[in-house]
Amino acid sequence: MSGAPDPAAVRARHADGPFLRACRGEAHDTVPVWFMRQAGRALAEYREVRARHSFEEVIHTPELAAEVTLQPIRRYGVDAAILFSDIVTPLAGLGIGVTIEPGVGPVVAEPVRRMEDLVRLRRLEPEEDLPYVLQTVDLLVAELAVPLIGFAGAPFTLASYLVEGGPSRSYTHTKALMFQDELTWHRLMDLLAGVTLASLRAQVEHGAAAVQLFDSWAGALSPADYERFVLPHTQRIMEGLEDLDVPRIHFGVATGELLGLMASAGADVVGVDWRVPLDEGRRRIPVGVGFQGNLEPAVCLAPWETVVARVRDVLARAGARHDHVFNLGHGVLPPTDPGVLAQIVDLVHEEGEVRDPAEVRAEDAAHA
Amino acid sequence: MSGAPDPAAVRARHADGPFLRACRGEAHDTVPVWFMRQAGRALAEYREVRARHSFEEVIHTPELAAEVTLQPIRRYGVDAAILFSDIVTPLAGLGIGVTIEPGVGPVVAEPVRRMEDLVRLRRLEPEEDLPYVLQTVDLLVAELAVPLIGFAGAPFTLASYLVEGGPSRSYTHTKALMFQDELTWHRLMDLLAGVTLASLRAQVEHGAAAVQLFDSWAGALSPADYERFVLPHTQRIMEGLEDLDVPRIHFGVATGELLGLMASAGADVVGVDWRVPLDEGRRRIPVGVGFQGNLEPAVCLAPWETVVARVRDVLARAGARHDHVFNLGHGVLPPTDPGVLAQIVDLVHEEGEVRDPAEVRAEDAAHA
Repeated sequence: MSGAPDPAAVRARHADGPFLRACRGEAHDTVPVWFMRQAGRALAEYREVRARHSFEEVIHTPELAAEVTLQPIRRYGVDAAILFSDIVTPLAGLGIGVTIEPGVGPVVAEPVRRMEDLVRLRRLEPEEDLPYVLQTVDLLVAELAVPLIGFAGAPFTLASYLVEGGPSRSYTHTKALMFQDELTWHRLMDLLAGVTLASLRAQVEHGAAAVQLFDSWAGALSPADYERFVLPHTQRIMEGLEDLDVPRIHFGVATGELLGLMASAGADVVGVDWRVPLDEGRRRIPVGVGFQGNLEPAVCLAPWETVVARVRDVLARAGARHDHVFNLGHGVLPPTDPGVLAQIVDLVHEEGEVRDPAEVRAEDAAHA
Repeated sequence: MSGAPDPAAVRARHADGPFLRACRGEAHDTVPVWFMRQAGRALAEYREVRARHSFEEVIHTPELAAEVTLQPIRRYGVDAAILFSDIVTPLAGLGIGVTIEPGVGPVVAEPVRRMEDLVRLRRLEPEEDLPYVLQTVDLLVAELAVPLIGFAGAPFTLASYLVEGGPSRSYTHTKALMFQDELTWHRLMDLLAGVTLASLRAQVEHGAAAVQLFDSWAGALSPADYERFVLPHTQRIMEGLEDLDVPRIHFGVATGELLGLMASAGADVVGVDWRVPLDEGRRRIPVGVGFQGNLEPAVCLAPWETVVARVRDVLARAGARHDHVFNLGHGVLPPTDPGVLAQIVDLVHEEGEVRDPAEVRAEDAAHA
C-alpha cells in the first residue's frame, strides 16, 4: 500500500456525493446513478483492450483492470465506479481451477460436491492471494473523482459455479447437495462466506467506499430455502463488514420474493431487478433500508422516446425518495449504445427529484 | 381419425375425475396431481427408448411418443397425462430448421429477426403439418384412463427461440426486436399465436381434455412489457379455445409478478413456480381462476422426511381449495427417483383435503 492514498481520506473525500449519501439515507440533491456492468463490451475502448488481452489478463493486470473500470466514468458521468472483476476471481486466487470461457461463463474443471472436496477451499489471504485486485483498488482510488464500489459474489452464487462446474439453468447439483447433505452445504457456504468477507474487507481497507455483494443466482431459491440455506451466511458477511462503516448493497436477479430477506441479512441497500415494478419492490424492503434499480436493461436498446418514458417511470415509482440509487435492473447488455447510457445519466440527474429524508420518514411511519 | 374414439365421448369419460373438476372449479374429493415433465429422463424406461431413438424420432413416431407419455401414468398414479412433445415441434412442422441439441435445447439454424424473415412462418395446418402429433393424441385417448393435457409453447417463448436462435439467459435479440420494431414484433407474435392456437385446437379436437400453454420464459419480462408485447397474443389463443370448452392452464417460470396478467389472458388455471409461496401466488391470481403448483422440483432429491414436510407445506398453503391442482413448480429434474414421485402422489391423494366450493367462494367474497 506504499504510495497509495489513505483509504479513510479517500472515503471522506466522497462522503458528500449523492451516491454515498443516498446509500446512507442522508439528504442530497440529485438522484445518484450508476450501471451494473458499466465497464464492459458496450464500450469500444473496452473491446479494444479485450482484443489484445484475455478477460483473465485484464483482471490480473492492475493497470488494465483499473483502465476498464475508469472507461465508463469518463463516458457516462455516473456517480460511482465499480471494481472490474469477476464473481469467481477469489476462487481462482485460491487455486481452484476456474476459467472464464467466452460465451459460456466461469467453468470449474473439478466441481466441488462432497465433504472431501472442501479441502480445496482454504482461507483467503487477500494480500497474498489477490494482490492484483488490491493493486487495482489502489490505482483507482488515487484516480477516481467518484466513490469506488467493491465487488464480490455471494456464497450461493459462488457455490453454484463450484458445485455445477459452470453456469446452470436448474442448479440441480447445487440444490441436491443442499437438500441431501446439509452439513457439507453449510460448511461450503461458511468457507465461501469467509472468502467473500475477506475479499470485501480488503477492498474497503484499500479505499473502496461501498460494496456490492452479488448473489446473482439466489433467485433460483424459494424464500424458505433461501432463509435456511443462504441467509445465515450472507448475514455473517454483512455483520463482518459492519465495523468498516461503508454501505453494503445486495443484489440478485429474480429475487422478487427474497427482497425482504436480503435486506434482513444486514444490507444497507437492496437492488431490485426489472421484473418487479420499483414501487412494489420498495414495499417489500423494510423501511430504513435503501433500494437500487431498476430499468429493464433491454430498454436501452429502444428508441430514445421509449427510454425517456421508462426512465421517468422508474423515477416516478422511486417516489423521489432520498434512499434510492438509480440503476438498471441487471447488467448493461453488450449491444447497448454508450451514448444512450450517457443520456440516461443526464436525464436522471436533471429530472430526478430527492425529497427531504424527514418527510419520507414521516410518510413511512404513517404507513407502518 | 378413423378408428379413433369420439373425442367428446373421451372427454365425458374423464369429466368426473378430480383433475378436470378442479380445473373447472367443481366439487371433488381428492387433490389432483400431475408433474410437469413427468415423462422423461427420470424414468429408466424412457432412457431405454432414448438409447434407441433420438428425441426427434420419439416425437415423430406416434407409437413412441404415446409410449413415453404413458410411462409415467403406469408408474405414478397421477390424475392426468400430458402429451409428450416439445415447445418447438410446431415450428419444425412448418419447416423452420430447428433441432433439439442434447444438453443445449432447441437450436434454430437461421434466426428470425426482420420483417422479411416472417415469410418463413406460414399458417399451420395441423392435420398436414403435424400428423404424427395428432396420431399420438389418437393413440393416447384410446388407451388412457386419465385425461390427456394438450401441450403447446406460447408465442413469447417460441419467439425467443426463433429470434435468439437457441436458449438464452438475457433474451437480448428478442427484446431488441420488441423494443426496436414493434410492427414486426406484433406480426411475429400474431403468426405464432395462430400456430399455437391451431396446434392446441387440433389436439382438443382429437380428444385432449385440457391444454397447458407454456410461456416458459415470459418471466424475463416486466409486467408492463408483458402486458404490451405478449398479453394480447395470449388472449387471442385463450379466446380461440373458448368454444372447445376445455380447461386452459397457463404456466411460465419466474412469473411471480405476472400471475394476475396471465390469468387475465383468459386462463382457467395459472401455474405458480416454486419461487412464490403458493398462498401468496393464490392472492395474485383473480378469484374464479384456479391455481397449480408448486413444489420445488429439487425437493424431490431430498430425504423423504423433507419431501413429506414440503408437500404438506404446499397443501397447507393451497388451503384445501377446490380449485388447486398439485404439481411441481417446474419440470421433474432428471436425477429424480421415480419412487419418490409415486410416493408424493400417494401422499397428496391421502392427505390433501378439498373443501366445498361454496365455502371457498363465500370466503373469497368476504375477502373481496
